[in-house]
Amino acid sequence: MSFNKITPSDIDFFREVLPASFILADEENIERCSSDNTEDFVFPPEIILQPASTEEVSKIMRYCNEHNIPVTPRGAGTGLSGGALPVHGGICLDMRRMNKIISIDVDNFQVITQPGIITEELQNAIKEQGLFYPVDPASKGSCFIGGNVAENSGGPRAVKYGTVKDYVLNLEIVLPDGEVIWTGANTLKNATGYNLTQLIVGSEGTLAVVTQIVLKLIPYPAENLLMLVPFEIAEDAAKAVNKIMLSGHTPSALEFMEKDALTCAIHYSGSNVTVPENIQAHLLIEVDGNDKEVLFKEMENISFLMEDFATGEILFAEDSEQKNELWRLRRVVGEAVKHSSVYKEEDTVVPRSYLPELLHFVKKTGNKYGFKSVCYGHAGDGNLHVNIVKGDLSDEFWNEGLPVAIREIFEYVHSVKGTISGEHGIGYVQKPYMNIVFNEVQMNLMRQIKQIFDPKGILNPGKIF
Amino acid sequence: MSFNKITPSDIDFFREVLPASFILADEENIERCSSDNTEDFVFPPEIILQPASTEEVSKIMRYCNEHNIPVTPRGAGTGLSGGALPVHGGICLDMRRMNKIISIDVDNFQVITQPGIITEELQNAIKEQGLFYPVDPASKGSCFIGGNVAENSGGPRAVKYGTVKDYVLNLEIVLPDGEVIWTGANTLKNATGYNLTQLIVGSEGTLAVVTQIVLKLIPYPAENLLMLVPFEIAEDAAKAVNKIMLSGHTPSALEFMEKDALTCAIHYSGSNVTVPENIQAHLLIEVDGNDKEVLFKEMENISFLMEDFATGEILFAEDSEQKNELWRLRRVVGEAVKHSSVYKEEDTVVPRSYLPELLHFVKKTGNKYGFKSVCYGHAGDGNLHVNIVKGDLSDEFWNEGLPVAIREIFEYVHSVKGTISGEHGIGYVQKPYMNIVFNEVQMNLMRQIKQIFDPKGILNPGKIF
Repeated sequence: MSFNKITPSDIDFFREVLPASFILADEENIERCSSDNTEDFVFPPEIILQPASTEEVSKIMRYCNEHNIPVTPRGAGTGLSGGALPVHGGICLDMRRMNKIISIDVDNFQVITQPGIITEELQNAIKEQGLFYPVDPASKGSCFIGGNVAENSGGPRAVKYGTVKDYVLNLEIVLPDGEVIWTGANTLKNATGYNLTQLIVGSEGTLAVVTQIVLKLIPYPAENLLMLVPFEIAEDAAKAVNKIMLSGHTPSALEFMEKDALTCAIHYSGSNVTVPENIQAHLLIEVDGNDKEVLFKEMENISFLMEDFATGEILFAEDSEQKNELWRLRRVVGEAVKHSSVYKEEDTVVPRSYLPELLHFVKKTGNKYGFKSVCYGHAGDGNLHVNIVKGDLSDEFWNEGLPVAIREIFEYVHSVKGTISGEHGIGYVQKPYMNIVFNEVQMNLMRQIKQIFDPKGILNPGKIF
Repeated sequence: MSFNKITPSDIDFFREVLPASFILADEENIERCSSDNTEDFVFPPEIILQPASTEEVSKIMRYCNEHNIPVTPRGAGTGLSGGALPVHGGICLDMRRMNKIISIDVDNFQVITQPGIITEELQNAIKEQGLFYPVDPASKGSCFIGGNVAENSGGPRAVKYGTVKDYVLNLEIVLPDGEVIWTGANTLKNATGYNLTQLIVGSEGTLAVVTQIVLKLIPYPAENLLMLVPFEIAEDAAKAVNKIMLSGHTPSALEFMEKDALTCAIHYSGSNVTVPENIQAHLLIEVDGNDKEVLFKEMENISFLMEDFATGEILFAEDSEQKNELWRLRRVVGEAVKHSSVYKEEDTVVPRSYLPELLHFVKKTGNKYGFKSVCYGHAGDGNLHVNIVKGDLSDEFWNEGLPVAIREIFEYVHSVKGTISGEHGIGYVQKPYMNIVFNEVQMNLMRQIKQIFDPKGILNPGKIF
């Protein structure tokens, strides 16, 4: 791909589209938009544009398409696969000004929103209307809903409520040539032509720029209960997950944390939760619903099931403060591990019952190659985040040896019908591993789809393929 | 499109692939495969092939692609949009021999099945393992799961449990050139490349032939309760649906039947359920779950909500026999209307709250153009089946006047962000109306996707576009 560098005459055009204050090239903003939350990558854009409307996005895209200028859409920059890195320079399309909720339709349990709103703010506005948008990535306090759509994000509640794709009914998108279309209809059912909506969800900003999102909502569950179960054997925690699901319970969260993940989070956040010596892993289990008595019964049943395993004392969160404390610990794990060392995060996902085996395989591979990993994730979905810590490993091993080890882990994952990303996306960092899960026929179908939407390849180049 | 007719040398090739007894051209089978459940269309295939394996499908497709022979995949022929009609002749690819359940994975709540099994048989086998595949089209006793995937079928339980697309995790497909691929992984979460799985679901056999289906399952709800609520004003029944949903209840079915729909079903099936003179419509309401007491409370709450409307006496189904009787009536409505006259069935879908307005608009349009309609459907999803009865209308009006009226109804549907098919698909009969909901930009994206998968256009030609 050969792209054009941005020239003064390009800037003149952008000044016709946007006020000067939303065309940025200062050091601070360039630095901000050079990285996301993925490892320590730095790819500076040449310029940052901050549109406020679909029309502005359309004008920018049409111009860049005509002039062969690469455009990388950016949400909040919390991505974990490098989806927002402008690896070919060009324009960072910073969506933060498109942060309005267009409408919350209480009659139809739907919200129409722009992409640049923080997910938690959107959730809170929805909750005020008695409704629930349940998908809550760990970064919900800072990530944008648009980024969530781009990466098909999940989070702890996916085990009961699914991921972003299960809530997106319709999208307004701007194609690279500037055309604006809706992908579907605002209906719960749709059997009208090909599913363009689900083609865009999870396409990581490589097919179109999402400018409006219609989400399905559900009634807000009035009550929830939370408990933390400590296990003496880490693989038992993974086995307990199957036991819970097979007994007919569907918790609203079933989160796995290795000892190191939790202790790391405790130290990082200064919590006074303690982890006894003999404990190797924890499960954080939440149930939700409208009837507190039913939930108490459910929690009781689940704790009985835990008696089959060697556990420590189960901690039942007594009030919302304690619940928040436990959730905060779970949510900061990623940040805490990152704070302690450079690391690579792999987003492995397998059919749930393979989780104990996956954990075992990761540790075995670590022993073989001599790296340490901190594992945690959404055990109810079989989604294990494997954080490989650099520590004092050599740069040589980090850059050349480690990819071989990661490949082995991904090959195992593929062998049990899992895949290499459950909720983070492929973006920039997992590209080299796509050929483990897709052959040339599959890859060619995807490349040709990219070609249809973006024939000049200007939109988020260098990602997925 | 110019296709080749089947020649004796083609037959010779098919005899190398299949035993002679599965290459059919007798009158009875040709007649069977010339029609589906859509109106009174007859499009005979030249020949019927009945493969038993993916490999056989692959060989057939590769050959037909090379020789420019059109192939129309066929499930059970229960479709309502003409998706299985071989409108260009050629081969009917009759999938009935591919009717095996490959495995039910109880640990992971998944089933892997071939496409040619009857949906209800699949559901029963799953239920025996304590698990639940909830999508149950009215034709579940005869339709195939493969056809359900092709059309993204729904059914009464979609209001709580969603449609086929919400359960398909992964598909084995044969491309028109004979290549066999899987579209995704057997995981609940997936953020690995473009969502090819959801591109195939609902593509009506125009992109690939589905040969294996991996479905997500859920725990089987132990209990359910059913009631039939009669309304003096039809639009009140539609309004009651909103009232129920807004109060936080999510029934497992919320079925609307106009008076004529129910009486037609009663006469057709010889039921002794009676409909008083002053009743204009019914809602059939089901709740399900694991705790019967909770369900009784829920039913009680819902019946209180009905006091805002002029209703007749609510009928609570007392035992499974009565439940089956009521469900049977609901399920035969389509068949019963068809039995009484030629009809056209429109599969309108709108955001739920517009249902009363849609019903009003349909009746108003009927008055304007002088046709009678029988309406029923899945009110919880805003999915209204509008059956326009031919009766003694002239052929001229039926063929030329009626499409104008249907267009008006679909334009209304589109104006409230609904669409022209909720669960039946576009197939052959709704093609002329696609331009109401999609402009040329959207249609071109879809046409180009078709072109990628099926460059020669041999797979189910004459559908969708």
